Amino acid sequence: MTLDLRFMGAALALAERTRGATSPNPGVGCIIVNNGRIVGRGWTKPGGRPHAEAVALAEAGAMARGATAYVTLEPCAHESARGPRCSTLLIAAGVAHVVAALGDPDPRTNGKGFQALRDAGIVVDTGIMAQEASQAMAGFLTRQALGRPHVTLKLAMSLDGRIAMTNGESRWITGPEARAHTHMERARHEMILVGRGTLESDAPALNVRLPGLESRSPRRAVLTQGGAPDGWEAVASPEAIAALTGVDHLLVEGGAGAASAFLAADLVDRLLLYRAPILIGAGKASLEDIGLTALADAHGRWHRRDTRMLGSDQLDVYERRRH
Amino acid sequence: MTLDLRFMGAALALAERTRGATSPNPGVGCIIVNNGRIVGRGWTKPGGRPHAEAVALAEAGAMARGATAYVTLEPCAHESARGPRCSTLLIAAGVAHVVAALGDPDPRTNGKGFQALRDAGIVVDTGIMAQEASQAMAGFLTRQALGRPHVTLKLAMSLDGRIAMTNGESRWITGPEARAHTHMERARHEMILVGRGTLESDAPALNVRLPGLESRSPRRAVLTQGGAPDGWEAVASPEAIAALTGVDHLLVEGGAGAASAFLAADLVDRLLLYRAPILIGAGKASLEDIGLTALADAHGRWHRRDTRMLGSDQLDVYERRRH
Ligand SMILES: NC(=O)c1ccc[n+]([C@@H]2O[C@H](COP(=O)([O-])OP(=O)(O)OC[C@H]3O[C@@H](n4cnc5c(N)ncnc54)[C@H](OP(=O)(O)O)[C@@H]3O)[C@@H](O)[C@H]2O)c1
Ligand SMILES: NC(=O)c1ccc[n+]([C@@H]2O[C@H](COP(=O)([O-])OP(=O)(O)OC[C@H]3O[C@@H](n4cnc5c(N)ncnc54)[C@H](OP(=O)(O)O)[C@@H]3O)[C@@H](O)[C@H]2O)c1
Repeated sequence: MTLDLRFMGAALALAERTRGATSPNPGVGCIIVNNGRIVGRGWTKPGGRPHAEAVALAEAGAMARGATAYVTLEPCAHESARGPRCSTLLIAAGVAHVVAALGDPDPRTNGKGFQALRDAGIVVDTGIMAQEASQAMAGFLTRQALGRPHVTLKLAMSLDGRIAMTNGESRWITGPEARAHTHMERARHEMILVGRGTLESDAPALNVRLPGLESRSPRRAVLTQGGAPDGWEAVASPEAIAALTGVDHLLVEGGAGAASAFLAADLVDRLLLYRAPILIGAGKASLEDIGLTALADAHGRWHRRDTRMLGSDQLDVYERRRH
Repeated sequence: MTLDLRFMGAALALAERTRGATSPNPGVGCIIVNNGRIVGRGWTKPGGRPHAEAVALAEAGAMARGATAYVTLEPCAHESARGPRCSTLLIAAGVAHVVAALGDPDPRTNGKGFQALRDAGIVVDTGIMAQEASQAMAGFLTRQALGRPHVTLKLAMSLDGRIAMTNGESRWITGPEARAHTHMERARHEMILVGRGTLESDAPALNVRLPGLESRSPRRAVLTQGGAPDGWEAVASPEAIAALTGVDHLLVEGGAGAASAFLAADLVDRLLLYRAPILIGAGKASLEDIGLTALADAHGRWHRRDTRMLGSDQLDVYERRRH
């Protein structure tokens, strides 16, 4: 049975576009290929149903017979009042080959989906582009593995690591391209959080101001031991994010106090560092104490995943290594 | 007359290798091409003589007749007890075509070299790869234009812009590849400077610890209003660098106090920022007050010239825009 990584890449791109919209379900992508041609495409719909496989099979119709289905996650094997099992649907459609990136850690499926397919005579390949899939479905996987949302910390800073002038002025450090990129990232999270200091000093709107994506503005939260104003939710501590419902991806947008609190609790999975080509000198540091006591302990924790220029600013994306 | 930029690139590479060794003369590169083949190569020898053209012409011998000479700087037109005029040598050798990157700002030559060549019937092209040449001969050009050495500020920091832990621990933030790169940079400067705080806390050797380059260790200076220990020179203020003799390239290696003093005086031309994939949090900031009063004034001053990975560290090179 042949297997073409480009189709898995396409399935992952479909999965990516669901980010921030499918909680508590994983955002899955599915591509069905018959004789080298794509005959069905699907991705998890907002709210988590229908599943990607159901959508793709519906599009493929009779062309699914003998086809290969590329899925970013193991097809589900558990009964639900909200829809049929995907493993059952794939079998019924006569699919010959299933290529999956990752197994589903959900104990109701975990391996049973693949087993059902194999029992029905379908060839199953797994672990294909698994690392890329871990990124595309980071929210779901983090919730499954660690019982909390996947957390991205965004900081916009100068070359010398300042996030504001001494008087608090921080508009603007980065340019329009970097800020537009942040708005795009916002649309990929269910919730954005800032510290109470930032809420009070900047009164940030934290909405998505990109044409066509305004409706993707996430919920807004403030890290505080106190209360939250209208339209905002209060989060009492970094650890409290585990109790948030409907939030698989949390974007922490600073300031230094909130960022440091999340880092000290080791609750940051990804860093979005926007760096403007400026020097500030004296000013507000990007971070305060994060609990580091020896320099050696700082090493080996972060891995650069991506870098790019956004206008004259540089974006570096780092991921927390966890083993 | 044809002109091939690759030969100018080669001449610039020859000029680059003289950096730190030709003060107060410019480090020039020269390539002589006859019928598409390189017949002579030369670069300014340590101490500034012989000049690049003299060396290249000697290698080319009779093959210089009718040839094209690629030079990174206008051939000199002034009498010197230390050697002949290069413009005269090129004419005497029968060179047909001279391709130059930059005119020589030295008032004794400034345009007269090109004029002498043209008067002798040689075709002269100028301004070829001028920007690259400005970089390769930055020390000489800065001394000519601003009456002081070209200054590079090196900082090794964490992603959040810290150069040491709160207790001063800064060994090691960056890894062996980045440190080797710094040693390479040292060999390209006539002098290295640190602040008195760094001298006392780190007692840095500041030598070149690369096999074969040990003899290229530059002079060592400390920024202080006090005196200097044996083997060190005292520099009383950033402005005092104008009076240094034999120094066309100065490398400032920190700490925060010295770095900020040079930046506040607008005496930094180039930034070498080595960034390790670590977060420090509370710690020593890379910079203190540099005299910035409004965020808008910080913009438009620095231009990213180069970026590369050195092991798991990132090096970004920025240049000061001066117009
Ligand atoms: N350039 C950027 O990317 C960027 C982004 C955001 C902000 N900024 C700048 O950063 C500055 C504000 O930063 P900041 O450090 O002063 O304030 P902050 O981080 O926005 O907020 C600090 C507040 O967060 C709450 N908090 C912190 N740790 C907590 C914990 N473990 N549990 C519960 N609550 C916790 C506390 O609120 P309570 O006291 O209410 O409990 C604390 O007062 C402003 O100048 C702003 O412009 C820059
Ligand atoms: N990661 C890195 O790249 C790096 C590099 C170097 C150092 N470091 C760290 O940085 C720390 C030291 O930094 P620091 O800021 O404390 O000290 P520093 O910058 O090394 O030295 C400060 C001293 O420089 C002199 N100085 C400053 N401005 C001056 C001016 N305008 N005119 C004349 N002299 C001036 C003064 O000396 P006098 O008081 O004698 O007049 C001042 O006390 C150490 O922890 C070291 O490990 C890190």
